[in-house]
Amino acid sequence: MARIDYLDDPSAPAATTIVPSANVVVTNDAGEILLIRRSDNENWALPGGAMDPGESLVQCGVRETEEETGIRCEITGLVGVYTNPRHVILYTSNGEVRQECSLVFTARMIGGEPRPSSESLDVRWVPAGEINDYQMHPSMRQRIGHFLERRASPYLG
Amino acid sequence: MARIDYLDDPSAPAATTIVPSANVVVTNDAGEILLIRRSDNENWALPGGAMDPGESLVQCGVRETEEETGIRCEITGLVGVYTNPRHVILYTSNGEVRQECSLVFTARMIGGEPRPSSESLDVRWVPAGEINDYQMHPSMRQRIGHFLERRASPYLG
Repeated sequence: MARIDYLDDPSAPAATTIVPSANVVVTNDAGEILLIRRSDNENWALPGGAMDPGESLVQCGVRETEEETGIRCEITGLVGVYTNPRHVILYTSNGEVRQECSLVFTARMIGGEPRPSSESLDVRWVPAGEINDYQMHPSMRQRIGHFLERRASPYLG
Repeated sequence: MARIDYLDDPSAPAATTIVPSANVVVTNDAGEILLIRRSDNENWALPGGAMDPGESLVQCGVRETEEETGIRCEITGLVGVYTNPRHVILYTSNGEVRQECSLVFTARMIGGEPRPSSESLDVRWVPAGEINDYQMHPSMRQRIGHFLERRASPYLG
């Protein structure tokens, strides 16, 4: 389904739901970062998605990463909390306007091989120095930026 | 409305919703911790509640603390993430079964005086050494315990 991000946009529609979700910064032994190209808006992004009843948010991050990339991972820490009310997402298929409530975790790869999925047109290991070459929503670039800063404590936003 | 907590209980009903919420460990200059006695189940607890659309989770923690205690606070850090799928809460008024998705923040008091509310029968500053004397749900005692441990990185559960 198509997805439209609104960030600091006075014309954004009002949020109707708040959905907890996880994004995961998975790194491999070379220190490269796992990125997907989203099938819904063709931007590059960290893997991740919404939490299902019956799982923890850490389990959600592991499950979504494997579904979208083929990579199995183990969560190792927390980059930050992203709940900016001025970032909402319109899902055009049903008119839902979702406010972000995302946690961004760090993780290490423990198995699998990158492969695309229905939600990911492409999956790549990207060296940190090449992240800027990938088209990305500003809210996603901010999250990866916080990871690369190696913050002493999680971002709370 | 009445609230029943189920923790690691095989007879717990299945979760129907996941609601992001905040709890706040507010401390004063004496290092005492702000506790409320909940009006819905008469247990002692940290102030907190569910995030509303249009606010961040940090703003939610500040708002809920002031509503429930009269104390204004400033968020200073994160104790942990609590999304255990084996902890669900039944609201008897409407049959909702809510899975926890709570973040526990640290905060310092910046103003106000403790006073009860419709959600809090009593509000007190409690020295850390007296916390064990207060009747509390195990999931709440765990959160305060994690705060008192001064963990180097947030609990992810």
